[in-house]
Amino acid sequence: MNRKLAAVTVSSLLLSGASAGAQGVEIMSNKSRATATAPAERFTGKVLLDPLFGVNSVTRAGAGYVTFEPGARSAWHTHPAGQILIVTSGTGWVQEWGGEKQEIRPGDVVYIPPGVKHWHGGTATHRMEHIAIQETIDGRNVDWLEKVGDEQYGAAARR
Amino acid sequence: MNRKLAAVTVSSLLLSGASAGAQGVEIMSNKSRATATAPAERFTGKVLLDPLFGVNSVTRAGAGYVTFEPGARSAWHTHPAGQILIVTSGTGWVQEWGGEKQEIRPGDVVYIPPGVKHWHGGTATHRMEHIAIQETIDGRNVDWLEKVGDEQYGAAARR
Repeated sequence: MNRKLAAVTVSSLLLSGASAGAQGVEIMSNKSRATATAPAERFTGKVLLDPLFGVNSVTRAGAGYVTFEPGARSAWHTHPAGQILIVTSGTGWVQEWGGEKQEIRPGDVVYIPPGVKHWHGGTATHRMEHIAIQETIDGRNVDWLEKVGDEQYGAAARR
Repeated sequence: MNRKLAAVTVSSLLLSGASAGAQGVEIMSNKSRATATAPAERFTGKVLLDPLFGVNSVTRAGAGYVTFEPGARSAWHTHPAGQILIVTSGTGWVQEWGGEKQEIRPGDVVYIPPGVKHWHGGTATHRMEHIAIQETIDGRNVDWLEKVGDEQYGAAARR
């Protein structure tokens, strides 16, 4: 009943994995979903992306598992239907445009409303891992903006 | 910017957590979302439910973190928009109506299509933990059926 998964592209949609769409229960083993390296035009530093699941004809949510090395972060971006981050390991930062960056830790669930410009990543000293879940509207789940410069990234964080 | 979360009911919707719906980025700490014990009329054995996030006016997906002790399992049920399980720890079983139960392990992602009658839980000898994600359609994300009897639960599994 397991299914051979189609190749996953991470460059544009970032975090969606393989599409689920069979008739019965499907078990997609970790081995069937290869880790990808996040594209340098959307991320700073080393970021790994493990696809988890994607949208299908019924469901709108897709998800990926993201691993940021220390200093690594996404570019600024927005999500048309918002985003949820479930922090699973390490210590990270999240910042919305116009606000201070904030520390996030395992067990934290972060909600980013639709259209809110933000970035997330590891701290300067720590790796961070999270599951990212976002819904697709009109074929899009993310809109990418400029990268986070070292000065922005290094500004003081709120604990 | 953190938000005091409303009380979470787990009896009917099982796996949805607090609703996200603010203007800016919200960090919902693990501490703000208390663990609940799954209701005995829907589950057999000891099952703990940690709400992760719920639906709001924009998004349809909700999620919870579920911990099954050995021998513990859900009742048979269906989801109107299907369900995704991300297995995070232990060893578990999943079974759809008319099929053999199958073993699931950390890293596996399980897709249950809409309307497919199924159950999931720990194995007879092992605890299992998973994140469960389901979308809400017409105000519902699950339809509960009969419990999984000991004879059904103990039948041979496919590896």
